[in-house]
Amino acid sequence: MNDLEAEVLAANAAFYRAFATRDVAAMEALWASEAPIACTHPAWPVLVGRRDVLRSWRGILENPDAPSVEQRGAVVHLAGDAAIVLCRELVNDTPLEATNVFVREDGAWRIVHHHASAVAPNVRERLTGGDAFSEFGGRN
Amino acid sequence: MNDLEAEVLAANAAFYRAFATRDVAAMEALWASEAPIACTHPAWPVLVGRRDVLRSWRGILENPDAPSVEQRGAVVHLAGDAAIVLCRELVNDTPLEATNVFVREDGAWRIVHHHASAVAPNVRERLTGGDAFSEFGGRN
Repeated sequence: MNDLEAEVLAANAAFYRAFATRDVAAMEALWASEAPIACTHPAWPVLVGRRDVLRSWRGILENPDAPSVEQRGAVVHLAGDAAIVLCRELVNDTPLEATNVFVREDGAWRIVHHHASAVAPNVRERLTGGDAFSEFGGRN
Repeated sequence: MNDLEAEVLAANAAFYRAFATRDVAAMEALWASEAPIACTHPAWPVLVGRRDVLRSWRGILENPDAPSVEQRGAVVHLAGDAAIVLCRELVNDTPLEATNVFVREDGAWRIVHHHASAVAPNVRERLTGGDAFSEFGGRN
C-alpha cells in the first residue's frame, strides 16, 4: 500500500467513526464542500446535492434508534486523482456492500459519493463468518 | 452540460447499450484495462479485478434468461479526472439505483466500477411512475 492509499483508507475510517459515534459535525466535515456530492442509502433512491445528503445523515445520526455500524475489509482503487473505496459494512450485524468515492479538497480526502446496499440472504452467512469474499475476487 | 460531461454520458449510454444488446465484446471493451476495476451487482458482494468482473458480465450477457435493461435519468459528477454517473436502471421493469465510475484511458472514458442496488418496494411505485426523484434532490 502506498501513501495515497493509506490516506484514503484513513479518510474512509474517519467516515465510519463519525457514523458509529453519531458525530454529526465530523460527518459533515468529511463530505466535500466544493465538489458535487451524492449518496445512495440502502434500498433508497440516490440523494444528490449537499442539502439532501447532509440532511439524510443528520437524520440517521440523530435518530436514537440509529443502527450500530462496523466497517471491514476495505480495498482502495485510485482513479486518477479520485479514489474509490470498496468495503463491507456490518449494520446491526447485517452485511452491506459499500462504495465510497473520495476527492482531495484543500489537501484532505473528502467523500463525494457513498452507495451502500444489502447482500442477499443466501450469501450473508458467508459474509459474517470471517474470510468471506475470497471466492469473489480475493478480498479478505 | 459541458463537453466532458457529455462524453461521460455517452460512455454510460454505451455501457447500457452493451448490457441491453448482450454484446460481450462491447462490454469488455468498455471496462478499463489499466486501472483496477470492481463491480457490485445487485444483492451481491463486490467483485474485484478484471477476471471476476468480466466473468460475471459474460455470465449475465450469455444467459438466455438475462433480464431486459433500460437506463434513465443519468447525472454526471466530475471528480478530479474521474467521473461518477448516478442513474436509474429498469431491470425487467424493476428500478435499481446505479453508481458508475469512469476514468480516461487512451483518450476514452472507461468504466472502473459499477454498483447497482434495488430500491425498497415502498418507494418503487414513485420511481416507475415518471417524475420520481424530485423530492430526493431534483433529478428527473
